[in-house]
Amino acid sequence: MKNIDQYLTANADRFVDELKAFLRIRSVSADSQFKDEVRKAARFVLDQLKGAGLTAELVETEGHPIVYGEWLGAPGAPTVLIYGHYDVQPPDPLDQWITPAFEPTIRDGCIFARGATDDKGQVFTHVKSIEAWMKTAGRLPVNVKLVIEGEEEVGSNNLDLFLERNKAKLKADVAVISDTSQYAPDMPAITYGLRGIVACEITVKGPKQDLHSGVFGGAIANPVNMLARLIGALHDDRGRVTIPGFYDDVLPLTADERARFAALPFNREAFLKELGVPAEWGEEGFTSIERRWARPTCDVNGIKGGYQGEGPKTIIPASATAKITCRLVPNQNPDRIVAALEKYLRGLCPPAVRLEFNTWHNCPGFVFDANSRFMAAARKAIEIAFGVAPVMIREGGSIPVAASFRTLLGVDTLLLGWGQNTDNLHSPNEHFHLADFHRGTRASAHLWLEMSKVK
Amino acid sequence: MKNIDQYLTANADRFVDELKAFLRIRSVSADSQFKDEVRKAARFVLDQLKGAGLTAELVETEGHPIVYGEWLGAPGAPTVLIYGHYDVQPPDPLDQWITPAFEPTIRDGCIFARGATDDKGQVFTHVKSIEAWMKTAGRLPVNVKLVIEGEEEVGSNNLDLFLERNKAKLKADVAVISDTSQYAPDMPAITYGLRGIVACEITVKGPKQDLHSGVFGGAIANPVNMLARLIGALHDDRGRVTIPGFYDDVLPLTADERARFAALPFNREAFLKELGVPAEWGEEGFTSIERRWARPTCDVNGIKGGYQGEGPKTIIPASATAKITCRLVPNQNPDRIVAALEKYLRGLCPPAVRLEFNTWHNCPGFVFDANSRFMAAARKAIEIAFGVAPVMIREGGSIPVAASFRTLLGVDTLLLGWGQNTDNLHSPNEHFHLADFHRGTRASAHLWLEMSKVK
Repeated sequence: MKNIDQYLTANADRFVDELKAFLRIRSVSADSQFKDEVRKAARFVLDQLKGAGLTAELVETEGHPIVYGEWLGAPGAPTVLIYGHYDVQPPDPLDQWITPAFEPTIRDGCIFARGATDDKGQVFTHVKSIEAWMKTAGRLPVNVKLVIEGEEEVGSNNLDLFLERNKAKLKADVAVISDTSQYAPDMPAITYGLRGIVACEITVKGPKQDLHSGVFGGAIANPVNMLARLIGALHDDRGRVTIPGFYDDVLPLTADERARFAALPFNREAFLKELGVPAEWGEEGFTSIERRWARPTCDVNGIKGGYQGEGPKTIIPASATAKITCRLVPNQNPDRIVAALEKYLRGLCPPAVRLEFNTWHNCPGFVFDANSRFMAAARKAIEIAFGVAPVMIREGGSIPVAASFRTLLGVDTLLLGWGQNTDNLHSPNEHFHLADFHRGTRASAHLWLEMSKVK
Repeated sequence: MKNIDQYLTANADRFVDELKAFLRIRSVSADSQFKDEVRKAARFVLDQLKGAGLTAELVETEGHPIVYGEWLGAPGAPTVLIYGHYDVQPPDPLDQWITPAFEPTIRDGCIFARGATDDKGQVFTHVKSIEAWMKTAGRLPVNVKLVIEGEEEVGSNNLDLFLERNKAKLKADVAVISDTSQYAPDMPAITYGLRGIVACEITVKGPKQDLHSGVFGGAIANPVNMLARLIGALHDDRGRVTIPGFYDDVLPLTADERARFAALPFNREAFLKELGVPAEWGEEGFTSIERRWARPTCDVNGIKGGYQGEGPKTIIPASATAKITCRLVPNQNPDRIVAALEKYLRGLCPPAVRLEFNTWHNCPGFVFDANSRFMAAARKAIEIAFGVAPVMIREGGSIPVAASFRTLLGVDTLLLGWGQNTDNLHSPNEHFHLADFHRGTRASAHLWLEMSKVK
């Protein structure tokens, strides 16, 4: 390991330069105008894997391509399936970035760019740790199969088909994903549970075009008012989601888990200040950590209707649209939740307007066995690189692929996050601490060794 | 009058050509990027008034200029204050126009363009009837004072100051405004009542920037959900506005007025089809006409928050904004309504978000004496030009200047609408029937004569 550690140190600056090149590529998968950039990012990853000494290829899909790479030269040793994504969230609102989203800039020990932590920076730690082994030892202590996709931020629509078609090829003993966070600075974590998600878009349609609010106001249902009424009806005064049956399948938190969560440091004042909110809000009877990791939600992610310009405009808008996501917890069935949401909204919608309901991706929430042998190997690797043992946590985000790995490939996942949840992922000024990037790369390098010891 | 009627007929096509030139000017007062175009429209009106033989000037204000013109060569005859506006509503949504908003096009006997009926086309009828008198008789039978402003669509913010400063100069016996509609095709109307309006914009602010809805969802108040909750709370299940005190000062409709409204033809099926709505909606216990003319409302004119692009984006938006207008009826006090709205919303807003509340223009609703001598003169002029006596109606829109004329100048207004309320004013594909344009011009020419007989 000494040679490898030295290689990582000697090449640290080059790794950052290469990461910058990766981050300059505007691989926004949600927006079709960036299609070519998304492909460019795939090619970048492909070249990186080949450069590290792996066999690699671009796998075409109906959407953006999947990069697949492998090295299978360690017969008898475990096979690790490494997943990451090279696509990024849209960068807007653009005017809130201090430096442009796709011009990676280093300040205060961090690299700022869209995708810095989610997930280009994090997936790059594994690419570079593999390179370090291959260039130093000429081999890896485990077999690796890498699946780096370009549609994670839009629901991984073509990934499951790829997994299903390549079940044999992708056979592995364990999966590794670095797309989560440490618990706090210098408090590395292994995430053993994630929330699921359902995403939909609802449109309330009224008159065939915008109408004069003086001439017609009061006699015609206003689609914005009606949409607001629907959304307003999604929560009660105790912060609970009111969709009938929403909580029916939710497993209660165990006393043990609540105690462990409560034992984690949580500075309420710092939390509020960091986010810039005047007070906490959420479901009555649960702590902030419980609300984020283990309770389901229903949030509007965007709303639009009627006049969008400056000044007033006295119209009744023709329609109004909202994008809605629910975060789900283990045992909630996404399809059932979506159906319940649609039924509930349709029941609330008066006949004076029409409701359109469209769904996007969904995936269930889940928890993994926190005491598996691979979990133990990961704990050791992290402790070596970070100098401190990781805490075992859950997270509020969703990584649908981890659910697919379990259901389609029968393999559990180690969720090893090197970033911070304050790194502004999905927000302006996303960044990744360079110290975390380098420690993550080192932990990854040690992980392959520790995993090779698992019998 | 024969010569004048002949002049109107002989010059009808030229009037349409000149109206087209007027409509080509993109005088959108709400949007500062069109400032030069707004001034260009003012100059167009100025040139028209001078061309007709009036004394005219541009009066600068802190916003867009007011065009003032006068001809006072009929001592002893009544003095008529004519008001109109040369500014127009924003043209968006642009993609719904069959022909571009500022490229006037004639089809199906109508001229299509933003401002065709509201108000360029209608104000032009008076300009052209005055021209007809001056070019034919060398004089008018009444004294006229014209005030054509450029800020009607944004609240006429500088008009009241102009009226106050020029009380003596603007002294008149009656005012005339053509910015309303006929009751129906071939059913000309005199409008003796209008609703008032209050306009505001509310912004719910949450985190200092968009946040990842997985990482933070459930523990942070979502500004869009909260805004929707506030808007959803503005009406009850009977379609009534829930702002405390909202109806306190509303005068009930008299049995006589309800009977007259009920006697007007109203084809529900045609109304629904024309607007493209599946069903009526509104305050329980009132007819569609009553809801539109004589009951107050609370409508959202535009809403915006969070991700506006295509596809999903899993964020908790930093803020959400809605533009709200209430239409008011006579005896409701606009300032009191705005204060009640703000107080109500602040009371509903949880401490986990911040509420910003900004107001724009407001004006009260009112009714005029439907039996005055000038009303009788107008009825006669309209009957001559349209071949049928007008019906006496109220309208749901707001013309703040009519309130100002009464309070500041002590003069009542004749609201003589030549257009149709289905002319898509404030909507895409606004238009004005050429037959109505020509009949309106003729009615205007006769109006000056009939008014000269009022003692």
